[in-house]
Amino acid sequence: MREVAVAGVGLTKFDLYDGEKGHPLKESYDLGAEAIISALEYAEMDMTDIQAAFCGSCYQGVGSGHQALSEVRITGLPIVNVENACSSSLSAFRLAYQSVAAGLYDICLAVGLEKMPRGFIMSTAWREWERYMGFNVQPAAYALETVRYIEEYGATLEQCALVTVKNRRNAVFNPYARFQSKVTVEEVLNSRMIAKPLRLLNCCPLADGGAAAVLCSKDKLKSKNKMVTVAASVLTSEPYGIARGGGSVKVKNPNRTEIGARQAYEISGYGPEDMDVAQVYDTMSPCEIWNTEDLGFCKKGEAGHLLEEGVFDINGRIPINTDGGLLARGHPLGATGLAQLVEIFLQLREEAGPRQVPGASIGLCHALGAGPNCAISILKR
Amino acid sequence: MREVAVAGVGLTKFDLYDGEKGHPLKESYDLGAEAIISALEYAEMDMTDIQAAFCGSCYQGVGSGHQALSEVRITGLPIVNVENACSSSLSAFRLAYQSVAAGLYDICLAVGLEKMPRGFIMSTAWREWERYMGFNVQPAAYALETVRYIEEYGATLEQCALVTVKNRRNAVFNPYARFQSKVTVEEVLNSRMIAKPLRLLNCCPLADGGAAAVLCSKDKLKSKNKMVTVAASVLTSEPYGIARGGGSVKVKNPNRTEIGARQAYEISGYGPEDMDVAQVYDTMSPCEIWNTEDLGFCKKGEAGHLLEEGVFDINGRIPINTDGGLLARGHPLGATGLAQLVEIFLQLREEAGPRQVPGASIGLCHALGAGPNCAISILKR
Repeated sequence: MREVAVAGVGLTKFDLYDGEKGHPLKESYDLGAEAIISALEYAEMDMTDIQAAFCGSCYQGVGSGHQALSEVRITGLPIVNVENACSSSLSAFRLAYQSVAAGLYDICLAVGLEKMPRGFIMSTAWREWERYMGFNVQPAAYALETVRYIEEYGATLEQCALVTVKNRRNAVFNPYARFQSKVTVEEVLNSRMIAKPLRLLNCCPLADGGAAAVLCSKDKLKSKNKMVTVAASVLTSEPYGIARGGGSVKVKNPNRTEIGARQAYEISGYGPEDMDVAQVYDTMSPCEIWNTEDLGFCKKGEAGHLLEEGVFDINGRIPINTDGGLLARGHPLGATGLAQLVEIFLQLREEAGPRQVPGASIGLCHALGAGPNCAISILKR
Repeated sequence: MREVAVAGVGLTKFDLYDGEKGHPLKESYDLGAEAIISALEYAEMDMTDIQAAFCGSCYQGVGSGHQALSEVRITGLPIVNVENACSSSLSAFRLAYQSVAAGLYDICLAVGLEKMPRGFIMSTAWREWERYMGFNVQPAAYALETVRYIEEYGATLEQCALVTVKNRRNAVFNPYARFQSKVTVEEVLNSRMIAKPLRLLNCCPLADGGAAAVLCSKDKLKSKNKMVTVAASVLTSEPYGIARGGGSVKVKNPNRTEIGARQAYEISGYGPEDMDVAQVYDTMSPCEIWNTEDLGFCKKGEAGHLLEEGVFDINGRIPINTDGGLLARGHPLGATGLAQLVEIFLQLREEAGPRQVPGASIGLCHALGAGPNCAISILKR
């Protein structure tokens, strides 16, 4: 397997693009195209350099990657549309990575895009009984997991609120985030109840967006200055064959995140203690707590306390969700995983501006999706 | 790149599974699971042998592959859901093939499944202007292409009808086909008009279904008797960046099929004259005519005449759609490509029963999908 570099990345602002209430009107392919153009410019490459493309999306219907690529005249090449729920574009990234690593292609494009459905969003619950029992919207299932996690590990709702507070604070410095304003613990705890005990500000906001990355073999890289390479890119699924795989419940250990993390650390030769920065899946604020533990950044039941101590702040021991995470950047399902990767890339290139983690040289991103699956990639400089 | 064998295949009967009018009720994951179990049994393998899975589907929402795999307790491994319209599962097959060929895994599973939406099916047209102009159902676009093809190459509607007649005749011997009854040219020409000049029997029927294939490295194969290997598996997209890529129109040459065929022949070292049997994309009967030409089985404008001469019959020079094709087997989008591959596999194993092409040892399958894309795989014994 060859070493694979990330040559360039692109991102749109995550926002509502429905043309209503002052928001601009853009289609999912516009968002994808915008991200692709940025990534190509960053990589100093042309559309004709791309040899294969992998595009993650969930709700865009047929041919979403082809649409975005056609928009920027990247045509005639192999294009694979990947639907892996919230890890769609990180799964697409992995296919692009594997293709270059295996020598199938020298330069590949990974894209993520999503214009989220408005109004009622059917969750990714897929068994009839799940829907009948009320798991037809995401917070319902996460609420149960949260209750169980709190019962088992003694976390508090204040700690869960602190996740939102931290991520919103980080996003103040991220012009691509949907929300660039701080919130307080009190505001989280007093926001509208969605599914007990989860409140509005425990949930990631609706957003549309696009993200892209150009991957290439070392010799195709235009500049090797601060070269970022892929140390590992893994994909797992929950070993229990059920729709909902809680990250916290003992009976289910090891879960998909633990298995994926183990694989990623083994392949990369790094451990959790080597990570300078991480993007951890935070679709609901408590998820960041248990996912942080499952990724091995601390022991089970510890993350809430460490959060209070600032360990996961930008100037902490292991900064998490430096760009605001799903909770502040927003969560256009198909674009989320690559947006996480873009942040890690920028951090390792020391281009993250006011939210830069000093000297970051190894970073991890982690996306969970229904399936249930788990995608983890580790980048290094 | 290692040689990759197809160890086993599985297929459900293609039928309506909506529980109405005497049809059984099955979900898409039931259909996928049924095909997977058959493929594993054929390969004499267990679910724990599978190291990675790729599942093609179009309309099943989030996590369709995970659902089917979870149904048969294949969990914990990397699963990628592929949406490439009508070539979804042939695209999934290609990813499985590449993974084994590159040595990433020894044994992979490719799955295709679809329970088609009922009632109005939004076509794969994706630009606003396409929909506004009436291309919101598939036959509308194919009707234009047909008219243009007829004008340019002098084919007749009788020849187009003959495609249906041939494929329905072949399907009489295929218990997995939705329609196992013959039709006449007159019946085709007198069937209900759908989009002039295309009539009901020029269009492939609605069907639900599942298909699966187990791919493995040579050393993992349980029996090397009549071993079938992958000679080429390519994926291309239309080089013009438009939604509709007609197979016939001169100004667009070379089109995605011609490009894909050229690549597949170059990689495999075979030419069209070496193919003993082929599954050619026939979503509307005239498509088979121009696709047959674009695949190089004859010159442009010749296929209609050769069809009249029986060249594409089971006992002809190059038998096409021996299992009935989309026109008789039915077209559950995500399952179609792998169903084609299953037929080629069975033909090369000499297990195709009364529709067996004597001594078939090399075969090709070809699926087009919106995007627009084109997937071609060549198998050999």
